[in-house]
Amino acid sequence: MIGRLNHVAIAVPDLTAAAALYRDTLGADVGPEQDEPDHGVTVVFITLPNTKIELLHPLGEGSPIAGFLEKNPSGGIHHICYEVEDIRAAAARLTASGARVLGTGEPKIGAHGKPVLFLHPKDFTGTLIELEEV
Amino acid sequence: MIGRLNHVAIAVPDLTAAAALYRDTLGADVGPEQDEPDHGVTVVFITLPNTKIELLHPLGEGSPIAGFLEKNPSGGIHHICYEVEDIRAAAARLTASGARVLGTGEPKIGAHGKPVLFLHPKDFTGTLIELEEV
Repeated sequence: MIGRLNHVAIAVPDLTAAAALYRDTLGADVGPEQDEPDHGVTVVFITLPNTKIELLHPLGEGSPIAGFLEKNPSGGIHHICYEVEDIRAAAARLTASGARVLGTGEPKIGAHGKPVLFLHPKDFTGTLIELEEV
Repeated sequence: MIGRLNHVAIAVPDLTAAAALYRDTLGADVGPEQDEPDHGVTVVFITLPNTKIELLHPLGEGSPIAGFLEKNPSGGIHHICYEVEDIRAAAARLTASGARVLGTGEPKIGAHGKPVLFLHPKDFTGTLIELEEV
């Protein structure tokens, strides 16, 4: 069911410093800062040859990553995203197996403009998993 | 400098259950359990179309992931591994920039039989990064 690893998302306390670290120290292909007000984050995409890293920083009130950064002030890996072909079929299969989809269980449009869902970390070895339909 | 994302490593408290979750619930290509006594872990490799997930479980006394699982009893993402062409050149560049390489600073032979290094999470946005020479 799951396909490619679409991205690894890392929450960071200082987006400019983290982007410079990946660009200058690690020598990666680092894009510009992009505000995603609908998702409460500012994002920097890092393009690797086979996948992406997304640096996330809170934007506005009630950002979904604000609590994570309070618990992890140095930053840390926030979630990983797997691609699926049919997100409603994936959600049905997962809920039938007893796994929990976060929120209403309905896909939302994610930061890439595609339908996404998040799965409960307690049902997936402590890992927050995003599924994205591609 | 960094190339492909070689793998995402997830420490899990129950390797058999985690492998079944990825095989049966997430429908991924899951390999057999492999003991790596030199590295203090038992590993299950999950092959995605563009990268790998490695499920890690402690093996023997003093496993390097035992403390992580004590702090994160449900499991969690332990590290991410980027590929580099020349690991000694990478280490020299990183230390010149003030970043810390863990241990002696010398590459060791990792679980895939290739030279690896680990970088200090405090210098890399709270993320434990492994570099592997390919």
